[in-house]
Amino acid sequence: MQHKSFGEMSCPVARTLERVGDWWTILILRDAFHGLTRFDEFQKSLDIAPNILSRRLAALVEDGLLRRQRYQDHPPREEYVLTEKGRDFRSVVLAMLAWGNRHYAPDGKSVVLIDGETGREVDPVLVDPVTGRSVTEYPYRTVAGPAADERTRRRLATSAARSSDAAPAPKEPANV
Amino acid sequence: MQHKSFGEMSCPVARTLERVGDWWTILILRDAFHGLTRFDEFQKSLDIAPNILSRRLAALVEDGLLRRQRYQDHPPREEYVLTEKGRDFRSVVLAMLAWGNRHYAPDGKSVVLIDGETGREVDPVLVDPVTGRSVTEYPYRTVAGPAADERTRRRLATSAARSSDAAPAPKEPANV
Repeated sequence: MQHKSFGEMSCPVARTLERVGDWWTILILRDAFHGLTRFDEFQKSLDIAPNILSRRLAALVEDGLLRRQRYQDHPPREEYVLTEKGRDFRSVVLAMLAWGNRHYAPDGKSVVLIDGETGREVDPVLVDPVTGRSVTEYPYRTVAGPAADERTRRRLATSAARSSDAAPAPKEPANV
Repeated sequence: MQHKSFGEMSCPVARTLERVGDWWTILILRDAFHGLTRFDEFQKSLDIAPNILSRRLAALVEDGLLRRQRYQDHPPREEYVLTEKGRDFRSVVLAMLAWGNRHYAPDGKSVVLIDGETGREVDPVLVDPVTGRSVTEYPYRTVAGPAADERTRRRLATSAARSSDAAPAPKEPANV
């Protein structure tokens, strides 16, 4: 990667970006959520160079999002299975899917999320599980946590100032 | 970018990755959600080279996630304001924040999402707005939509086969 290590930043978004590494990694995870487990399945789905796929799979195993599992003994063959941490990343991929469908499906949707019991299409929403309200709108906001470093505190202080600036303005309902 | 254009793939996740471009783009959007609007604010927050920041901001304007807005006439100065499409990306960034906090905050959380009215910390969940249930678990799954190309159909057909294989197995509750 040609950027400084985001993992050293304390922001959890930057740390997430560091771990998922690059677009291929997210597309491998997307395929894993679709049930793919084997090297040749990923390769066929992604049309990716074998050496790149090997590296990305190894990184996902090292980071604990996938684990290797023997599925044949003679000759030995392993497949890649999602761990709990890997499965938990599904909300990020589904949020991307929903955003992509809302904004970049001019010729219709190519992949949709459905309720498998009824076949109904679903446009998912990120909510506060306690109130059921969407967390992308007021009064939800991000603040510095106990482990915030100086830079994060400064950034979020600007945010707080702007939020109160914007509070009386009726045209910006959800900038927090 | 050194990969083939994911925008040409019909998958909405790939299209999303194409648009958000690279990690810097997501971190710029993160800062925009925090209320930053001005070039020097982004630069200070991200410690990013000015030419890279210029390019990323221009791409975000071109893609319709940010728009330029004059805030001073003499001399002319513009700031970068989120559009509706840009604000809508917040669910992706907050899903990343939640995942990062759950899995990569060994020394405590540096940024947390709160209900601004009560101060309560929130761990958001991606749900079906009709039923309120988490879409990362059964029976929710992704299927080919009307605009799916051949490759997407094949990939999702594998997924459907795996799902029915796995259905009777009690150990894999949520691989769909």
